[in-house]
Amino acid sequence: MTDLSNLLDRIGIPQGSAGLEAQQALDRLTKPPASLGRLEELARRLAEISGRFPPRVDQAVIFTLAADHGVTGEGVSAYPQIVTVQMVENLLRGGAAVNVLARHVGAKVVVVDMGVAAPLPTHAGLLSRRIASGTRNMANGPAMTRGQAVAAIEAGAGLVEAERGHGLDLIGTGEMGIGNSTAASAVVAALTGAGAEAVTGTGTGVDEEGRRRKVAVIERALATNRPELSDGIDVLAKVGGFEIAGLCGVILAGAAARIPVVVDGFISGAAALAAVRIKAEARHYLLASHRSTEPGAGHVLDALGLDPYLDLGMRLGEGTGAALCIGLAQAAVKILGEMATFKSAGVTDRSA
Amino acid sequence: MTDLSNLLDRIGIPQGSAGLEAQQALDRLTKPPASLGRLEELARRLAEISGRFPPRVDQAVIFTLAADHGVTGEGVSAYPQIVTVQMVENLLRGGAAVNVLARHVGAKVVVVDMGVAAPLPTHAGLLSRRIASGTRNMANGPAMTRGQAVAAIEAGAGLVEAERGHGLDLIGTGEMGIGNSTAASAVVAALTGAGAEAVTGTGTGVDEEGRRRKVAVIERALATNRPELSDGIDVLAKVGGFEIAGLCGVILAGAAARIPVVVDGFISGAAALAAVRIKAEARHYLLASHRSTEPGAGHVLDALGLDPYLDLGMRLGEGTGAALCIGLAQAAVKILGEMATFKSAGVTDRSA
Repeated sequence: MTDLSNLLDRIGIPQGSAGLEAQQALDRLTKPPASLGRLEELARRLAEISGRFPPRVDQAVIFTLAADHGVTGEGVSAYPQIVTVQMVENLLRGGAAVNVLARHVGAKVVVVDMGVAAPLPTHAGLLSRRIASGTRNMANGPAMTRGQAVAAIEAGAGLVEAERGHGLDLIGTGEMGIGNSTAASAVVAALTGAGAEAVTGTGTGVDEEGRRRKVAVIERALATNRPELSDGIDVLAKVGGFEIAGLCGVILAGAAARIPVVVDGFISGAAALAAVRIKAEARHYLLASHRSTEPGAGHVLDALGLDPYLDLGMRLGEGTGAALCIGLAQAAVKILGEMATFKSAGVTDRSA
Repeated sequence: MTDLSNLLDRIGIPQGSAGLEAQQALDRLTKPPASLGRLEELARRLAEISGRFPPRVDQAVIFTLAADHGVTGEGVSAYPQIVTVQMVENLLRGGAAVNVLARHVGAKVVVVDMGVAAPLPTHAGLLSRRIASGTRNMANGPAMTRGQAVAAIEAGAGLVEAERGHGLDLIGTGEMGIGNSTAASAVVAALTGAGAEAVTGTGTGVDEEGRRRKVAVIERALATNRPELSDGIDVLAKVGGFEIAGLCGVILAGAAARIPVVVDGFISGAAALAAVRIKAEARHYLLASHRSTEPGAGHVLDALGLDPYLDLGMRLGEGTGAALCIGLAQAAVKILGEMATFKSAGVTDRSA
């Protein structure tokens, strides 16, 4: 079991010269300076975060955490709760979108039951870290106890610790949980102070009436529970979810181990925001993969000070955006490692 | 030799139901409808363009065409002309950025000498389609004759025809040529009617004084040569370049063969604009890979009616943006081919 306070103590500002070394190396390559734009920035940040030059991205793991949400009882999702367990089974068979995109980039998907309501069959590929059979309905009281929130964070951190034993260069976040865009919107509203209206979208595809219902439910949850904006754990406990708290732990453990964390979309972003509220220095270890179409995604990115690498109109979650961005990270590192320099290629530099 | 008028006759509007089949297939997959956003659009367009369902992207080829420009005599580039031949040698050794990114996505790079000024050694990987040893200085008269422009277009088309013999599912465009952002800006100014000032940037990295010099040279070239806006060949001949005209031929041949063409950045975009001016239906076969930081890139994309998939602040050319987008195209096609359907996975659909 990873102890949370110990974990937080291990998170500092990234030190060392690897980022500078990466920048100097990039400037020696046969291309006009900075002409690969954000691909160069990505290479530099991977070096900075990991403290390694050249950075490594060979072993990338997407942690896809699943859980259910009591708030689905309020009719906030386009899909019934049973879809969570069905999709976990789909993830285990390799048929979900994140499986396909992770295979495309050679990343591993770790599927974790953080608290799915329906029973799941034993499966060699499934990690069980169940906190409870779904959260309680946050519209009527806290989604979970503070102790459960801490347990979920510690469980998430433990996933990273375990995976490090097999080699772990790059972390992607992902999630599955019917109703979790409602929980994420509530978390983001609580942590940013933005109104529920501003940060609530259509999730998997409710109509405008459904979206208004989500907003009303979130407002009720916030009024009922009064989460403390300055206390990330309190916010996660009162209006979060087990997979969101678990991802918060994944992110904190990545930061503690200086492993770059590629944040997926809106729900992962809510977890990242909570992680940074719990330990501000964690933000230095984050990379935003893409800009989700959920309206709250912009609030999350602004609050984290992150500019995503992709903007493809995606809103699926699971870690799909993280997977695509891992492909870019691999490309960025190959640029560093495989391109010729002006000197090695005998190309005349502009300064010559 | 590919005959241009025959080539143009073979370009029509893409027919068939493959795009619709792709859309229907996407909607059966275990994800909320349209939740993969532009990745789904990309899969659908690949099917539409090729007329194949599922579309294939196994054999992707980036055509990187090189040539020199007489206009470099006006001091429009941050690098000396000799860099063109040095970079061709770098491309042949696999040390250029596009080599690295093409390897990353499993694409082949075909390097073609369309008219490099300095002599190039024979190399098994180099195709020689030299029109002349660089264009003439467009500031003083036409860059090339109309016959040379047609020959360059036909040579480019011939590259595609030859490559089809080895299998060719997806075309990427790329180029190398010191001074070619000046030629591309002139082509885009002529074809769009936008002023030289609006479409001229810093290229490989001239300073603001250098950029103003580029603008003045382009204005002089346009005033001297008076290219005919409605005549893509005339524009290419008067203010283009051999690699730009060659890429125009690559694009037209892709359109004729219903092979999707992934357009790289600004200079490739100028070639695409010329291709569409020569044959309007060619635009249906184009995909814009990324938004270059060159100010003219937005004018090109608007004129082509294309929304690029990536916006990473890149401005290198060579086909580097095309390579990254080919990776996205592969991901999109795998989504179509490898994801489970609601039915196959036993996942409850929203309509259930």
